[in-house]
Amino acid sequence: MSEELGLSVKKSENFGKWYLEVIKKAELAEQSPVEGCIIFTPYSYSIWENIKNYLDKKIKETGHSNVYFPLFIPESFLKKEAEHFSGFVPECAWVTEGGSTKLGERLALRPTSETIMYYTFSKWIRSHRDLPLLINQWCNIIRWETKAAKPFLRTKEFLWQEGHTAHATKEEADEEVIKMLNVYKELVENQLAIPVITGKKTESEKFKGALYTTTIEAMMPDGKALQMGTSHNLGQNFSKAFNIKFLDKDKKKKYAWQTSWGVSTRLIGALVMVHGDDKGLIIPPRIAPYQVVIIPIYKKETKEIVLEKCEDIEKKLKEEKIRVLFDKREQYTPGFKFNEWELKGVPLRVEIGPDDIKNKQITTVRRDKEDRIAIKENEIEKIKNILEEIQKNLFEKAKKFFEEHIFVVKNFEEFEEMMKNKKGFIKACWCGSEDCEKKIKEETSATIRCIPFKREKIFSNCVFCGKKAKEVVYFAKAY
Amino acid sequence: MSEELGLSVKKSENFGKWYLEVIKKAELAEQSPVEGCIIFTPYSYSIWENIKNYLDKKIKETGHSNVYFPLFIPESFLKKEAEHFSGFVPECAWVTEGGSTKLGERLALRPTSETIMYYTFSKWIRSHRDLPLLINQWCNIIRWETKAAKPFLRTKEFLWQEGHTAHATKEEADEEVIKMLNVYKELVENQLAIPVITGKKTESEKFKGALYTTTIEAMMPDGKALQMGTSHNLGQNFSKAFNIKFLDKDKKKKYAWQTSWGVSTRLIGALVMVHGDDKGLIIPPRIAPYQVVIIPIYKKETKEIVLEKCEDIEKKLKEEKIRVLFDKREQYTPGFKFNEWELKGVPLRVEIGPDDIKNKQITTVRRDKEDRIAIKENEIEKIKNILEEIQKNLFEKAKKFFEEHIFVVKNFEEFEEMMKNKKGFIKACWCGSEDCEKKIKEETSATIRCIPFKREKIFSNCVFCGKKAKEVVYFAKAY
Repeated sequence: MSEELGLSVKKSENFGKWYLEVIKKAELAEQSPVEGCIIFTPYSYSIWENIKNYLDKKIKETGHSNVYFPLFIPESFLKKEAEHFSGFVPECAWVTEGGSTKLGERLALRPTSETIMYYTFSKWIRSHRDLPLLINQWCNIIRWETKAAKPFLRTKEFLWQEGHTAHATKEEADEEVIKMLNVYKELVENQLAIPVITGKKTESEKFKGALYTTTIEAMMPDGKALQMGTSHNLGQNFSKAFNIKFLDKDKKKKYAWQTSWGVSTRLIGALVMVHGDDKGLIIPPRIAPYQVVIIPIYKKETKEIVLEKCEDIEKKLKEEKIRVLFDKREQYTPGFKFNEWELKGVPLRVEIGPDDIKNKQITTVRRDKEDRIAIKENEIEKIKNILEEIQKNLFEKAKKFFEEHIFVVKNFEEFEEMMKNKKGFIKACWCGSEDCEKKIKEETSATIRCIPFKREKIFSNCVFCGKKAKEVVYFAKAY
Repeated sequence: MSEELGLSVKKSENFGKWYLEVIKKAELAEQSPVEGCIIFTPYSYSIWENIKNYLDKKIKETGHSNVYFPLFIPESFLKKEAEHFSGFVPECAWVTEGGSTKLGERLALRPTSETIMYYTFSKWIRSHRDLPLLINQWCNIIRWETKAAKPFLRTKEFLWQEGHTAHATKEEADEEVIKMLNVYKELVENQLAIPVITGKKTESEKFKGALYTTTIEAMMPDGKALQMGTSHNLGQNFSKAFNIKFLDKDKKKKYAWQTSWGVSTRLIGALVMVHGDDKGLIIPPRIAPYQVVIIPIYKKETKEIVLEKCEDIEKKLKEEKIRVLFDKREQYTPGFKFNEWELKGVPLRVEIGPDDIKNKQITTVRRDKEDRIAIKENEIEKIKNILEEIQKNLFEKAKKFFEEHIFVVKNFEEFEEMMKNKKGFIKACWCGSEDCEKKIKEETSATIRCIPFKREKIFSNCVFCGKKAKEVVYFAKAY
């Protein structure tokens, strides 16, 4: 534990530096000796476990089974789907030696598992009765990024889940894509308290090898977009490359329709950015490692009764299935502990001192509001309501920020002006040409984050070329 | 699903072939296109999840936190503990290229994580207050084995957990080593229903880099030993190599004492071998993906009432928190389903036909005994007891086999005779010399599996050299 608890920089003043400092001081990640990789500490891994437990349950409830496929992908496999290969080969780490032997063929460490899985799918799928095939995998992923690493957001290794399914028809695959995107939306909005917009990626932004990609996009406090999860309809691209055919009810052999979808540990980075403040992290109660921390306040003569009361309250909160930590360390003052747990973003602090005991109460302090509220000892179940209120408040606050930072623009002057002077997303009309998309990116760094599912009326001509517009889309700079 | 369900070979006739066939036909694993790696199917991965959920809970209850460290280990790190390096370097897979760049230093894919973790421990540990440090990691492990692969038992990639701890004194490390070995013993005996003996490894069989290694050893039906889990006291070997020092209460700087311990997906291989029979797998109820399968038996005119009753029973069993599958597939006969679920080792089958409905009962058939027992519908909670009896019976059966296949020998003639003609472990006295140990291995392939914790009286001179014996030990051929 670092003795210098406070952050040296304000979130509003230097967002990038604040992000790195809060991650280090709140002990979420540690730089690893391998450049570009991070160490997930107990604290960040516990957040990931809470995300994982929730999501794994949803993935199983929607009929998927977990599996585990090899880390190694022969180069020849990656090459089978040409667009996919060209998308991933620049980021592959290659194993070329095993023991003291040089390998005949280079093996890529999975940057994603489509190719290694679908080779096997072709053996599992024979008849329409074998469909839908619905599987999921939790694993590590390797992408040899050349851009500078950023903890949780861009690292050479990260953790994720990847769902992979095969269906008899395009319609069923379409349905699966949306079903899982909605599971992600619920995870991110209801558990991480981060609002998102949902939509389709343009051709140039889609997953390499997919028919189309759907996405959930969140807005970070610097106005940039973070892609929180994607769900792809792969069409028959891979089933043709890997010969995944089934005998349909009409006795005809057909290629399967496939989907894949994933979310990763990048979600941890998002929640740091969206909810944190100048004091440190604020973790939404539903995924917080500790939802409540109890801090005893005593002098020599009151020590015994205070500690006893704290233990009693700890026990009662555990009975209510609240994740609680009783911080009974003697070498630190209450003030030091307040700062430390604020830095670490525990949603609710409970203070118990002699006066509280006298009044048969405990004192609560919310991390998101700093209200001090006394709660009667016999109404301790109210803590649950407070945690729910914090969860709701964090979401509402983030939603308000999101809505206030969407700017509607009608021409490229306004577009450039906004990108230069404000932070946020741009809502604009687009003609649908890749050329306009590309030029906007070149001139402003902004990309089309998605074509929203919630269709809106065209309100101008194309923001770039001025020709007839086809879509209302969101633009932003992105992580 | 393969149409040819039956096994073509008996367990007693060709154990090796039986093992491979049951794994394939019961759909536990699939060969992968990368030689020496397997694919964990939904069925085997579900067994692993049940093992993992149980063990993860125990690991947390004993105070450990989960973390995640990078897959990559720089070659220079591995080299810091010389004995450790020499033990693992022949089995390392090496990444030498990232994207299109040749790396400056080769990166090993973790064969175990001591070195990468302990580099960071040296930054986390400053004072006695930072101790004990208790962490655990669930991850994939790479060992580039040159011997032929065997699913679950020896593959280039497998899954495991690895615990890593640091303590102020040797005594505390000793205690941790035994505590976690006992957690493993309980996992293997009470969940997997496989009896083990516990003890210490000899110097030549210990983990490379450890002070000493403790082990749990099980006996397979061919009499060979399978090491099910190990727990090492690393002494100060790594803390000296990685400079893990702390300021003790007496104000002196001291090197930490460390432990590491692990179990892997090899446990799945053990349970296949120990419990399976000529019909296929038998999975102990506590870790079975499905504990009960319901199979409807009907003709056209009774279909509706039978299916309805099955659904009713399925619901009731779920309420009892039993993992149940109602097999309502129409394209297969009940007979086919009986065979399939026997092959897959579901502990209890429930049959429901018109006669059962008339008698207000269900018919149960145990996988381990084939008793047909009718249970009254209003006594359905009895199923729980039956599952517990199956669990107990599987353990007792394996324990009986284990005990009946330990042979006490007093001289090397008896030793060789036994190794040639019988299957099992040898209990013998040993002088303690590495030379005798080595020669016995050369002549019989048997190794000392452990020096048991349960000390027994020396009953002869050394089984090899005839000099005064120091220890009673167990010998066996090993996987």
